[in-house]
Amino acid sequence: MDSLYNTSIIGYISSPFKEKFGIPRQPGINSTIESKICLEKEFSSEECVRGLENFSHIWVIFKFHENVSKGWSNLVRPPRLGGNKKVGVFASRSPFRPNFTGISVVKLLKIEVGINTVITISGGDFMDKTPVIDIKPYILYSDSIEDAVCKDFELKPQKKLVVTFSDKAKAVCMDYEGLENKLSDILSYDPRPAYYNNDRDKECGMKFDRFDIRFKVCKDILNIQEIIKL
Amino acid sequence: MDSLYNTSIIGYISSPFKEKFGIPRQPGINSTIESKICLEKEFSSEECVRGLENFSHIWVIFKFHENVSKGWSNLVRPPRLGGNKKVGVFASRSPFRPNFTGISVVKLLKIEVGINTVITISGGDFMDKTPVIDIKPYILYSDSIEDAVCKDFELKPQKKLVVTFSDKAKAVCMDYEGLENKLSDILSYDPRPAYYNNDRDKECGMKFDRFDIRFKVCKDILNIQEIIKL
Repeated sequence: MDSLYNTSIIGYISSPFKEKFGIPRQPGINSTIESKICLEKEFSSEECVRGLENFSHIWVIFKFHENVSKGWSNLVRPPRLGGNKKVGVFASRSPFRPNFTGISVVKLLKIEVGINTVITISGGDFMDKTPVIDIKPYILYSDSIEDAVCKDFELKPQKKLVVTFSDKAKAVCMDYEGLENKLSDILSYDPRPAYYNNDRDKECGMKFDRFDIRFKVCKDILNIQEIIKL
Repeated sequence: MDSLYNTSIIGYISSPFKEKFGIPRQPGINSTIESKICLEKEFSSEECVRGLENFSHIWVIFKFHENVSKGWSNLVRPPRLGGNKKVGVFASRSPFRPNFTGISVVKLLKIEVGINTVITISGGDFMDKTPVIDIKPYILYSDSIEDAVCKDFELKPQKKLVVTFSDKAKAVCMDYEGLENKLSDILSYDPRPAYYNNDRDKECGMKFDRFDIRFKVCKDILNIQEIIKL
């Protein structure tokens, strides 16, 4: 029976998020960020994706590959609860879970069929190189539950910080179209864990795309001090 | 790397649908039908489900276990398109898919913690004994995409048939509370594949709960002729 449940990787995601830090905590938050699903050859035929263009949104079922070696916990501390309150793993979307399986709905932008079919999406919360195990169309009448109740989870995360750039950082942005907007968008949600909040002098770093972004936060202003090309 | 992706079964679903025929084609359609997720011991602690009661709906990630031996196809014929038009497997929710993984959102009714924790749900489209690989809370702001576009898939399936009962069938229903309502609900959606439509004299059978339900359809009336206890 067990052998029935070996999982095949149908493709990999290429995303500008190169490390866990800075990835939005739920999909759909950073709509400016594009990612690409590159399907393995076996799943790349025109037939496999025929008609997918009729849907504006798709489900991506994936593995939290970075967490497998760390195991799973029966209790987790969701960031939305300030990192203090614990809830059960099945009452959270924590990546540290049995089978390390994630589901995220994303916007479908483009499908390019080829030896490796490439599907461009936006709004994903995936780390680069995430293995994909399934793609499904988003079906409005069965997936959108408008009257669902989610105590503690009602609100979409709000932008908390004003993002500013040093002259040096701004100069780097001039050379990369869209970089300034993307960084402003992502970092305005404050990617730092709750326990960072009072440590104002601490410089933080986040790898994004081909860059290491160095920033400091003071009150509600996040200043990008340096953008280092990797 | 492959060994990272062995899938553990975290529990099994007990459902009145004993065979594929008659199962609603999407979750959320038959809200009168309750199922139970019985978690394996390893995943049954109070901690694992702590806080889950704060959510009205949950995602169940599961395996289409009946289909694994039949393999997957790159093209499928969705019943909503009359069984004639083919679409790609990734543009459908067909169970015959790579990794045989399904996702369904269901209503959460009750959580009973024990040696095997039991979660009662309604609105599921699961066959009895379906293996479960994950449970996640439904999160309104990330999962409900109210403006999603789904061409060919806009409408919730409509009730098509008036369900009537023979005296003999009605007599059996008298002994089982709720059975008449459940059968009226499920069968009114016409569970038969498209090619049955013009074959009016054909008796159909559907195993549901502890019963074999025998019925015939004439025009828009479905008559339950017999309910045989198994």
